[in-house]
Amino acid sequence: MAIITLTTDFGEKDYFAGAVKGAIYSELDEVRIVDVSHSVSPFHISEAAYIIKNAYKSFPKGSIHIIGIDSELTPENKHLAVYLDEHYFICANNGILSLLASEINPEKIVEINIHDKIETNFPVLDVFVKVACHLARGGTLEVIGKNIKEIKYLKQLEPIINSDKNQIIGHVLYIDNYGNVVTNITRKFFENIGKGRDFVLSARMVTFSEIHETYSDAINFDLEKDKRGEEDGKKLAVFNSAGYIELAIYKSNPHTVGSASTLFGLDLLDTVTINFE
Amino acid sequence: MAIITLTTDFGEKDYFAGAVKGAIYSELDEVRIVDVSHSVSPFHISEAAYIIKNAYKSFPKGSIHIIGIDSELTPENKHLAVYLDEHYFICANNGILSLLASEINPEKIVEINIHDKIETNFPVLDVFVKVACHLARGGTLEVIGKNIKEIKYLKQLEPIINSDKNQIIGHVLYIDNYGNVVTNITRKFFENIGKGRDFVLSARMVTFSEIHETYSDAINFDLEKDKRGEEDGKKLAVFNSAGYIELAIYKSNPHTVGSASTLFGLDLLDTVTINFE
Amino acid sequence: MAIITLTTDFGEKDYFAGAVKGAIYSELDEVRIVDVSHSVSPFHISEAAYIIKNAYKSFPKGSIHIIGIDSELTPENKHLAVYLDEHYFICANNGILSLLASEINPEKIVEINIHDKIETNFPVLDVFVKVACHLARGGTLEVIGKNIKEIKYLKQLEPIINSDKNQIIGHVLYIDNYGNVVTNITRKFFENIGKGRDFVLSARMVTFSEIHETYSDAINFDLEKDKRGEEDGKKLAVFNSAGYIELAIYKSNPHTVGSASTLFGLDLLDTVTINFE
Repeated sequence: MAIITLTTDFGEKDYFAGAVKGAIYSELDEVRIVDVSHSVSPFHISEAAYIIKNAYKSFPKGSIHIIGIDSELTPENKHLAVYLDEHYFICANNGILSLLASEINPEKIVEINIHDKIETNFPVLDVFVKVACHLARGGTLEVIGKNIKEIKYLKQLEPIINSDKNQIIGHVLYIDNYGNVVTNITRKFFENIGKGRDFVLSARMVTFSEIHETYSDAINFDLEKDKRGEEDGKKLAVFNSAGYIELAIYKSNPHTVGSASTLFGLDLLDTVTINFE
Repeated sequence: MAIITLTTDFGEKDYFAGAVKGAIYSELDEVRIVDVSHSVSPFHISEAAYIIKNAYKSFPKGSIHIIGIDSELTPENKHLAVYLDEHYFICANNGILSLLASEINPEKIVEINIHDKIETNFPVLDVFVKVACHLARGGTLEVIGKNIKEIKYLKQLEPIINSDKNQIIGHVLYIDNYGNVVTNITRKFFENIGKGRDFVLSARMVTFSEIHETYSDAINFDLEKDKRGEEDGKKLAVFNSAGYIELAIYKSNPHTVGSASTLFGLDLLDTVTINFE
Repeated sequence: MAIITLTTDFGEKDYFAGAVKGAIYSELDEVRIVDVSHSVSPFHISEAAYIIKNAYKSFPKGSIHIIGIDSELTPENKHLAVYLDEHYFICANNGILSLLASEINPEKIVEINIHDKIETNFPVLDVFVKVACHLARGGTLEVIGKNIKEIKYLKQLEPIINSDKNQIIGHVLYIDNYGNVVTNITRKFFENIGKGRDFVLSARMVTFSEIHETYSDAINFDLEKDKRGEEDGKKLAVFNSAGYIELAIYKSNPHTVGSASTLFGLDLLDTVTINFE
């Protein structure tokens, strides 16, 4: 059965996501609709990219992913449908595709041209749903758009290396539900540059000289049980499940003990530096 | 396959929505359950009405919509099942139906009488689910209730016109996820009264003399790209996708640049006035 | 069709829940995935227990419930799969099972041993999904784990009785979306100890001498309609739909009139005392 996923900044309250699901079921009886997230920060393209990039890979090949962020059609923000890594993506040409396609080249990109003359304030409902249902029925990209090669490029997500190759300057890419701070430095990038050298990672007032494989890796389970409590709230750096270096507090609850983001004073786009010996 | 939608004030955390979905699947194997919203403000009938009114039309005819707002059975708050615009609605007689039915008369209204003697604190689970599953199996309204004609009327949503027909006084109906301010003045109402005359729309400290068709309609795309940034954050009035006049900030993020609601100082029920020449 | 439910602290925004759903659909085409809650407070085991305990009973027998709270595999936090009350639960051995199983003994408990050597930071995706899909296909617990008898015990949820059996000391177990305060005193426990005696329930500055069957039970519907408004905001104690004593405000909206939690000054773990005559 075809799968259509939704990643939007519609929020949890408004009628937008409900209407979109209703419109899909009105066109197709046999389809699965999966909410990936409707809580992307409004118009936050890099946040949406981080979320869908890490979610889509778990879905079956051939799944169709609607990205409803900054999707109003304008002279500069055309609508795209893309075949990439054996998945379909429907989004606006606002730069998000360049973030999704940073490692894998899209096999095919079309600029959607099924719009009729009537303008719409709800392109996800009026355009993206139609394209998604067309693809879900086995339709081709060529029928709903014209091939293009160039997409809007958003430069933003790449960490920098100095000329001596002993320093990486990255930044904060995402802050998750636990308040943990995800940097834009991947494990692969870090290992390629570091080549096993000792290092110090610094971000505002915290420093780390080790990056753990798992959160609990940082915890000393040989401690007496009554001293274990002190390990909760331990600060640590870890390779997260998405493959990025993440700065975390062990078992943090942002609402009580605080989180990495608040305790380290780190927010989106703040700088994270790694100096190798 | 039958579709049952859920619009409630249960919130995202509690077990209520999960239990309701479980109870539906316990009765029916072949059914689609669609969450419209569980984040309606507690007991907020007009907010719930705005959400379901704008969502249900996208669903296939014959869909069944459970509205779980202020639904405890009391001497004055009976339970209703309604056939309206070829959709079914199950809700309490708390006035929400009068808001839903403001333009379209219900074809049939029954007062649900399948309650056994046992009182319940969870009528959506114990009563609405049973009614929804009965309808999903193709059952009729008459089996689960008795026909009624009169429903509780909530007056609230109608804008007023002065006797000279050169002024509309409306109010704020809803504030959406982007912080945009939806008034209770529809395009149809506005055009009927205005008949193309020039006008000034005022709400607290903002005024508008134009209502755009889309958000980006207000933006000057001929500007040099490096001056375009100033267009983000532009204030504008627009006919929104639900057909109402909405006061908005272009690409607003309530958490960063602020939103129409916070920047214009407008909250639910605040007055919006349109003076025609 | 097999049902797999999700109860996690992933939040509404991150990619975690989306990825888990994608992974399940990648393994199984014929399955229903139901979100119970992703908004459990981070690492809050007793909150998760309250939610899933009250949700699972509405689902069909044989449903499979994934609990993604504090689920990282550590020397002390093994992964469990459990058959309890004709439902399957997959969770970490962090004490949550002792809360779920406080009234009903699990029929079978296995410690999951399908982990390969690779460590994971996302055990719900990499381990729980595999176990859930195995069970959904009709597989047995023995294939994916070894039988165990002892589980980690969390003492916390039991109210205390004094030796004269005229006092119950309980505490606040949960605060719901309406800000209502759920105590850990069940109706059954209360009636067993009280045996119909008069009582005073005290919690910080509020006292109650009656526990209602429903919220509206506390409201005087014989009042003239124009005096009825005063009944909104009335404080009351009620047996809630989960069977616990709950302290509530009639039709409270935490964002406007305030809620039981804020108005009574009651937070999680605060003491609630019942003195019988």
